[in-house]
Amino acid sequence: MGIRVAVAGASGYAGGELLRLLAGHPEFDLVAATAHSQAGAHVTAVHPQLAGLDLTLTATDAAGLSDADLVFLALPHGQSAAIAAQLPETVKIVDLGADFRLKDPALWERYYGGEHAGTWTYGLPELPGQRELIAGANRVANTGCYAATITLALAPLIAAGVADPADVVVVASSGTSGAGRGAKVNLLASEVMGDLSPYKVGAHQHVPEIKQATGATSLSMTPVLAPMPRGILATVTARRLTGGDPREALLQAYGNEPFIHVLPAGTWPHTAATAGSNSCHLQATVDVDSGRIVVVSALDNLGKGAAGQAVQCANLMSGLPETTGLSVFGVAP
Amino acid sequence: MGIRVAVAGASGYAGGELLRLLAGHPEFDLVAATAHSQAGAHVTAVHPQLAGLDLTLTATDAAGLSDADLVFLALPHGQSAAIAAQLPETVKIVDLGADFRLKDPALWERYYGGEHAGTWTYGLPELPGQRELIAGANRVANTGCYAATITLALAPLIAAGVADPADVVVVASSGTSGAGRGAKVNLLASEVMGDLSPYKVGAHQHVPEIKQATGATSLSMTPVLAPMPRGILATVTARRLTGGDPREALLQAYGNEPFIHVLPAGTWPHTAATAGSNSCHLQATVDVDSGRIVVVSALDNLGKGAAGQAVQCANLMSGLPETTGLSVFGVAP
Amino acid sequence: MGIRVAVAGASGYAGGELLRLLAGHPEFDLVAATAHSQAGAHVTAVHPQLAGLDLTLTATDAAGLSDADLVFLALPHGQSAAIAAQLPETVKIVDLGADFRLKDPALWERYYGGEHAGTWTYGLPELPGQRELIAGANRVANTGCYAATITLALAPLIAAGVADPADVVVVASSGTSGAGRGAKVNLLASEVMGDLSPYKVGAHQHVPEIKQATGATSLSMTPVLAPMPRGILATVTARRLTGGDPREALLQAYGNEPFIHVLPAGTWPHTAATAGSNSCHLQATVDVDSGRIVVVSALDNLGKGAAGQAVQCANLMSGLPETTGLSVFGVAP
Amino acid sequence: MGIRVAVAGASGYAGGELLRLLAGHPEFDLVAATAHSQAGAHVTAVHPQLAGLDLTLTATDAAGLSDADLVFLALPHGQSAAIAAQLPETVKIVDLGADFRLKDPALWERYYGGEHAGTWTYGLPELPGQRELIAGANRVANTGCYAATITLALAPLIAAGVADPADVVVVASSGTSGAGRGAKVNLLASEVMGDLSPYKVGAHQHVPEIKQATGATSLSMTPVLAPMPRGILATVTARRLTGGDPREALLQAYGNEPFIHVLPAGTWPHTAATAGSNSCHLQATVDVDSGRIVVVSALDNLGKGAAGQAVQCANLMSGLPETTGLSVFGVAP
Repeated sequence: MGIRVAVAGASGYAGGELLRLLAGHPEFDLVAATAHSQAGAHVTAVHPQLAGLDLTLTATDAAGLSDADLVFLALPHGQSAAIAAQLPETVKIVDLGADFRLKDPALWERYYGGEHAGTWTYGLPELPGQRELIAGANRVANTGCYAATITLALAPLIAAGVADPADVVVVASSGTSGAGRGAKVNLLASEVMGDLSPYKVGAHQHVPEIKQATGATSLSMTPVLAPMPRGILATVTARRLTGGDPREALLQAYGNEPFIHVLPAGTWPHTAATAGSNSCHLQATVDVDSGRIVVVSALDNLGKGAAGQAVQCANLMSGLPETTGLSVFGVAP
Repeated sequence: MGIRVAVAGASGYAGGELLRLLAGHPEFDLVAATAHSQAGAHVTAVHPQLAGLDLTLTATDAAGLSDADLVFLALPHGQSAAIAAQLPETVKIVDLGADFRLKDPALWERYYGGEHAGTWTYGLPELPGQRELIAGANRVANTGCYAATITLALAPLIAAGVADPADVVVVASSGTSGAGRGAKVNLLASEVMGDLSPYKVGAHQHVPEIKQATGATSLSMTPVLAPMPRGILATVTARRLTGGDPREALLQAYGNEPFIHVLPAGTWPHTAATAGSNSCHLQATVDVDSGRIVVVSALDNLGKGAAGQAVQCANLMSGLPETTGLSVFGVAP
Repeated sequence: MGIRVAVAGASGYAGGELLRLLAGHPEFDLVAATAHSQAGAHVTAVHPQLAGLDLTLTATDAAGLSDADLVFLALPHGQSAAIAAQLPETVKIVDLGADFRLKDPALWERYYGGEHAGTWTYGLPELPGQRELIAGANRVANTGCYAATITLALAPLIAAGVADPADVVVVASSGTSGAGRGAKVNLLASEVMGDLSPYKVGAHQHVPEIKQATGATSLSMTPVLAPMPRGILATVTARRLTGGDPREALLQAYGNEPFIHVLPAGTWPHTAATAGSNSCHLQATVDVDSGRIVVVSALDNLGKGAAGQAVQCANLMSGLPETTGLSVFGVAP
Repeated sequence: MGIRVAVAGASGYAGGELLRLLAGHPEFDLVAATAHSQAGAHVTAVHPQLAGLDLTLTATDAAGLSDADLVFLALPHGQSAAIAAQLPETVKIVDLGADFRLKDPALWERYYGGEHAGTWTYGLPELPGQRELIAGANRVANTGCYAATITLALAPLIAAGVADPADVVVVASSGTSGAGRGAKVNLLASEVMGDLSPYKVGAHQHVPEIKQATGATSLSMTPVLAPMPRGILATVTARRLTGGDPREALLQAYGNEPFIHVLPAGTWPHTAATAGSNSCHLQATVDVDSGRIVVVSALDNLGKGAAGQAVQCANLMSGLPETTGLSVFGVAP
């Protein structure tokens, strides 16, 4: 018999991807999936791509989740703390929300509002030393999707002294599933198809998370909504501090990582190659005109940016091989 | 040690999907992948979504394939026969091309041109009795993508006497990967995005294949290119012969099939729910105004319409559980 | 000074396209645009593509509209009658809703529900004799978008005795703007991109409208939502009654029409070529296997399928050249 | 009788858009359209969106063009000089290619290769003083599409001393029509849909053009191919030099420009709102974390980025009102 897992907030896009991964996971037994307004619905009424999975969504409360060995929380930001407080300490938790990511309460309040709930182990295994911390934790705060994309590109360059932590400029475009499943006019297909649309320009809430994870001290980030369902492409530029080669710094950092692929020289990441996978593709160069470092990072916002990353953390927390139930390969075209 | 498999024609879209499925298959060992113009290239130069797979494409010749226990041929129509003739009888073959699908040489010549190569066991396991034939065959002709979609919708209704085999009208739309990876202006993203474009109107080469597989005697089929990378949606209408319920006929036919999902009443198939999977979703009703039967069928043209179907057949031919290495669940959104 | 026109229901997609056409119309002066929940907003807050148009949306009531010589109603189905009743007889009206299209009250009640409001002159100028009726009317019921697409393909073939009015099968796919601008989960970009999704299968409300306009007596129509913002592609098949050539019948019917283009033989309509225009593209053939007539019709659902058609009618009603302010050419790619 | 105009290179996307604009232009008479491989074809065989335009493409030679008062060259980079040399001085020319944009031969050779052909009046009327130069010129070098987008955002900020010309970082995404109509695998719909793909990272040929037009001295620009047919969205960031408000600088520069819209505060440009128009939408802010200026610029790469801009210049060169035959309004959704 496997490890018993449950998903709270299963009706959204990250929740659906979690269900897909868990239903195919060889060691996890999916014992409960909860949803707020959809409680009582068969899972396929909410996620038709899961036809063949016999599961009924239940209400989101601690009673229904306490029976699991490990619980994934895929709730709107600010709702994880209340549920987490009701779960026994022995139940492991991976929170896909932002509630427990930031260390500084002041930054939480500025970017999210409300009271800071606390700080959990940050769920990005490829950061130095982080894999071990996650394996020993029973509470893990999964990365934000933009934060994962950008941190994987930037952290090694700052750590190696190649990039100036005080001069980082990022433009990152995301597929629409990153904006959630709420019925909003600006997310309608009619509005999005054929359109690129920036939002939260000048003040995105992932900025403090990225700075905390990378050591950057000044970071301009502009997010753009792109006409595709999945994927994030981040263009990360930074002033170059030394003559060190940025691609070499990436190779040094990720040489043996199963999910991080520094592409062959001259080949640039693109999002479709990562769709449905838990992989992140990276490449770097030095800009001819400005001399700045340019790193491009691509991943699936629902995969390595959310649900896949969460399963990777859960594998570590459960003593399983880190790659169990996750695909390195994208579904393309 | 697993069963040794090889892919001929690995640089196209069906070939790439085969590689993805085989690289994740627990019983098949991928020992060779061949390509014509791309021989010598690393697989990730051709299929960047397979980053992490260490494989070099080789030239397409019998010598490189004979070492395998089972070979998938994903070659342009008309090229399978020559390669197949050079492979030992003991090497099992699944041909994803059209060469060996039709029984009637006259129909082959009319729709494809050139000489008829012969007829192999038809690779659609869900047809009555076909599963057993496939399991016993060492040469299998995989279905065409439209043919699979439409046959799964139509065959049970004709067999049950509910639909008139002499009065079938089909309109089916396909994602662009069904049109192949050749560099053609009409397949450019600029031309396709925002566009629905019919082609081969009045005379598509899958018509005789569908008639042969379903028993239909007259079939009008109009194919349409749709602005999406994957998926086929077929609307199959037929004159109703008896008062038998068409949805019941589907349920009777597919009650226990792992990959065929007759959706809950009132829920209609849509392509995105099948993307990346080997599933086919079906629903049927009777048109209020005309009294015709309307069946809608959706699948992934590269999955159940090509590579997934081929792996399903290969599993049967190899004595493995039919679902090995295949996903029931779609990657959505 | 020009003819004074107003738009009621200007915040939706058809309303926005009306504003775009009217703002560029050389003879119409746009004097008012009303909206329900958006009253008080500047037009560019609702339709950013109209940057440069200085106009504030007002509440939808008769007082604000009575000042115009001609009013376009782009309201939800069932709301036109109330407003129309309050406008003076001397104010010309083009209703883009369904309220006044059907002659048979029983069909209205079956397909739309509620009380039948009456019947106005049907706004499809290319039907025989209809142009003159529209020119003489001060109340015109604009066509439905599917109805326009299908009627233009089918009416000449039935009139010429080439197609059997008792055996018509249609599958038509529409871009998402046809589904309106309401915030619904099934219309989110994440759900629609990469997806084809049938809806109202077996019982669409445009069926009685098409039968009334074409003389068809039995019609099966399956609508499909396609991943593009604009455009309808209809595949209309019918049993062939005589040896008459279906393409000839189209040429006979539309030889001099400025907006209807029967394409060169062998060239098939596709939706992108009509985007932003008031044109309809047509082609016909006889299916090789079934002998059925296949006609394909493409237009922009917001152009010839809604706002463009309405302006064409308004031109006629105002004694202007029919093509004034309308484009024959599509915006492509 | 109007001004006689001709288009050389009419079979590409910019050429097709030129034909659309010229066919609807009230003062220009389109007397010839040439194409290389498509000479002899009817224009609708190449541009089906122009159904209704009776025009046959001819071979690209000086003889066929000399009869015009004004010639648009929409040829591949490097081919304009040869044709231009054969046209009489009295024939006005707008070159949509790059051949005559750069002043510095060394930069031409570095970024384009081959010999520098010379320098013509730069075709961006909204630059200070440039409108008058264009009106007086008979040879104009139209802007590059990225260059137009970025220059319109950046030039006023550098001119006003608000932005540091030595510290500019740009990421700009373009729809696929910007990559041309050549049949290439990487531009296939199957590859592009659902994908964001950077290219020419670190060394794009529009960098020297932008520096020349704006006065920037160091500029990092990363271009990205986006899954949409039209549109460019540029995110332009620069170190802030003074406390001057960047949005005010834009308003000062463009207050009376008919095609440049500085959006209401808090509203951000998005590409779909500019599709089919000659407008550019702009907005600016100061990044909270880094203090950098962020300007976002959106336009239609075939409109203000190519064909629309060219017609605007041609209007000026012909003594016509600058907006003749051009639309301020986008076609959306």
